[in-house]
Formats: sequence, C-alpha cells, structure tokens
Amino acid sequence: MSTSLNSINPTPRTRVVREPQRAVYDRHAVNQILDEAFLCHIGFVAGGQPYVIPTSYGRDGDVLYIHGSAASRMLRNLDQGAPVCITVTLLDGLVLARSVFNHSMNYRSVVILGNATRVDDPAEKLSALRALSEHILPHRWDDSRQPNEKELKATSVLRLPISEFSAKVRVGPPMDDEEDYSFPTWAGVIPLAMNSGAPIRDKRCEQELPPYLKNYSRKPTP
Amino acid sequence: MSTSLNSINPTPRTRVVREPQRAVYDRHAVNQILDEAFLCHIGFVAGGQPYVIPTSYGRDGDVLYIHGSAASRMLRNLDQGAPVCITVTLLDGLVLARSVFNHSMNYRSVVILGNATRVDDPAEKLSALRALSEHILPHRWDDSRQPNEKELKATSVLRLPISEFSAKVRVGPPMDDEEDYSFPTWAGVIPLAMNSGAPIRDKRCEQELPPYLKNYSRKPTP
Repeated sequence: MSTSLNSINPTPRTRVVREPQRAVYDRHAVNQILDEAFLCHIGFVAGGQPYVIPTSYGRDGDVLYIHGSAASRMLRNLDQGAPVCITVTLLDGLVLARSVFNHSMNYRSVVILGNATRVDDPAEKLSALRALSEHILPHRWDDSRQPNEKELKATSVLRLPISEFSAKVRVGPPMDDEEDYSFPTWAGVIPLAMNSGAPIRDKRCEQELPPYLKNYSRKPTP
Repeated sequence: MSTSLNSINPTPRTRVVREPQRAVYDRHAVNQILDEAFLCHIGFVAGGQPYVIPTSYGRDGDVLYIHGSAASRMLRNLDQGAPVCITVTLLDGLVLARSVFNHSMNYRSVVILGNATRVDDPAEKLSALRALSEHILPHRWDDSRQPNEKELKATSVLRLPISEFSAKVRVGPPMDDEEDYSFPTWAGVIPLAMNSGAPIRDKRCEQELPPYLKNYSRKPTP
C-alpha cells in the first residue's frame, strides 16, 4: 500500500477488502493507469437497474470528462448529479498457477465514485473535448476540422471529480501453495497488451500518414 | 440489424437508442463477442450507489458464470437475485475522421441485464468453474491441480441467464460529412487488438511450454 504524499484515505466505499495488498490509493499511480487507458465503463442506476456502458474519457488534472450525444439517454440520466461509478481496467496477463484455485490475472484497475455533472461553460466544454481527443490521440485535435457550434450543441460533456477512488494492481508470477510447487505443469505468466496494427487509410484519403500516427501505443514513453 | 432466427426482441431496457444501426440482437453474434472476450465489467447497486467491477466470466450455453471469493462483498451483495448488468467490450480500432465530431471507435460490446443467483448445486458449481477456466484458456483445467473441497467452499459462483441483452457493433472506415472530405488530414482506422507476449516461466518451474500455451490468441480459429 502506498504511503506517498499523494495518497488519500479510502472511504468505506472505496476501501479494498479482498486482496487488500493489491490496493493502491496513491493519486500519481492512479493517474498513470488513467493515462495509459482511454476506455472506461461507466455505471449508473435507472429505475433500480444498474447499467454499465463503455465509453472513452479524458483527464484534466483531478477531473475526468466523458462525452456523448446530447440526445443520449445515459447522459441525460446523469447530468443532474446522479451517482456514477467509472471503472478503468488494464489487463496485463494471465497468471497460470499449479492449482486451478491460484490462477489469477495481472491487471491494473481504478474505480472512481462520485456525482457527474454537465459542463455548461462553453470554454470548459471545448477544453474538455480537447482533453478527450488529446487523451486518446495526441496531436489529432489540431489536425482535424474543429467542432462548429451545431456540433458542440449536439454534444454533452460530463465532469466527474477524481476524489473518491481506489485502484487495484496485481503484478508478478503465480503464488502457489507450497505443497503444489512440485505439481508437474507449466506455471508462469502469459503477458497481454493492447497493440495497434498497421493504419488503414480511408479510400477517399490521399494524405501521407503523419508522424503522430506511426507506432500508436498507449505505453508511456520513458 | 440482424433478422436471423436467433434474434430476440429487445426490451425497452435493452433497445439501442443511440446509433440504432449499430444494434445487434442476434444471439449467435452476441455469443461470438462473449467467446472472444473473457473480461467483463459487472455493475450492481449498493446503498443507491452503482459499482462497476472488472472480473472474468465463462459461458455455458445461455448462461454466464462469474466467480470470486465467498468472502467478497460484491458476491455476497449479488447472490440473492440482485439486479446486475454485465458488459463486455472488445475494442477494435480508433476511427479517425476529418472532423473532430465524427471521430469514433470500432468496437463490439454486449450488455446483459438480469438477476444473478448463487450456484449451490456442487455439480453445477464444478462445471461452471471448468467453463470459466476453459473459456479463458482451453486445456488448462485438466493440466492443473484440481480444486479441493476447502477451495470450492471458499469460492462463490454466480449465474446470470443470457436472456435480456443487446450488442452494439461499429466496423469500417470513418463517415465524414460530405463537405469535409476535402479537409487535408489523414483519415482512416488504427486497428487495435489485445495480443499475447512471450510466456514468462515461473522461476520455480522447469516444465516445457505445452502446445496449448503457444501463440495464445482470443481470435476464433477459422
């Protein structure tokens, strides 16, 4: 468990109970996970039923932004301060132990609880959309046709403060019960990662591939 | 939209409202997505607050199984028929349009709503755990030390019927407004996929890598 200056005290809602040794409450570590991923799953409640929807997000300091159609049921459900949960998961590997029971996964996940609110200020809205775009693909915003007023009106942006959160991280080899180490099977880790393939140019495009699109990777550059 | 014999009628809760042309209500197509992925995000409500937790799953016919520690808060919250949402998302690419507004992603996602119940029957529990294991890594169950009674007792399994569901799929190139096709920027798709790396053998293992661990891939073999 981290004890840096940036660590926060978990609330009863975010304290990790299962496998507490995997818990991370350090804001810097959480931001690293949020910055490597760009897909989140947002949970909300409507009529007593939970819904979980995948969507992209951007981060600006201690705020997470998501966006969508202004006509979206989800965004209209959420923009009045409804409780939400945003979860981000990076899968790093299959962990193969000798026993079925000790099989696991290497992963890094962040859970953020809070209340989403709609961004109405035009300047914050534009900067949130830019943050979303830059988060997924740096340099792309300036190399695209900018949003016009009609498009901005058709887009809703929600903000969620990153204030009540926890992360869970598992790394490393399998951990077997001592008496199982002699069991005759292969044990170790199959690493998993999201990779990009060769860019596929649109049929109606004749532009050269710009440098920022070469070797697209989510891994932080050292 | 699919119209095969396997297609179901969406309920008001699962009908896709935004981008309805991306909706899929076909059970076979949904099963293909469920079988390629193995990570889901499960949403549930506790004290009015939604929670979204990543976990693995297995499928046996029209039933989805998840498992976890019998001591887990989540599983104890859910095993009495609480409403849940299980969402599975495969990310296939970044879709780069000429306008910021028409940027998108290629993806395949499934949303399943329903009520989870605990599996108490020992035979179903064991076969559910096998389904989970085989779903993630075929052949591994028989090549591992089988669960003993104590381990089975420490594990909870939940079942969710795959009966109220929808899927959303986006494929193909960017779709720009006609007047934007002359905008001078690169447009197309950056394919994304989860790939496996070279297996990392545990320091205390001397076994050779078995064939089922070579070139691990989630893509269906043709």
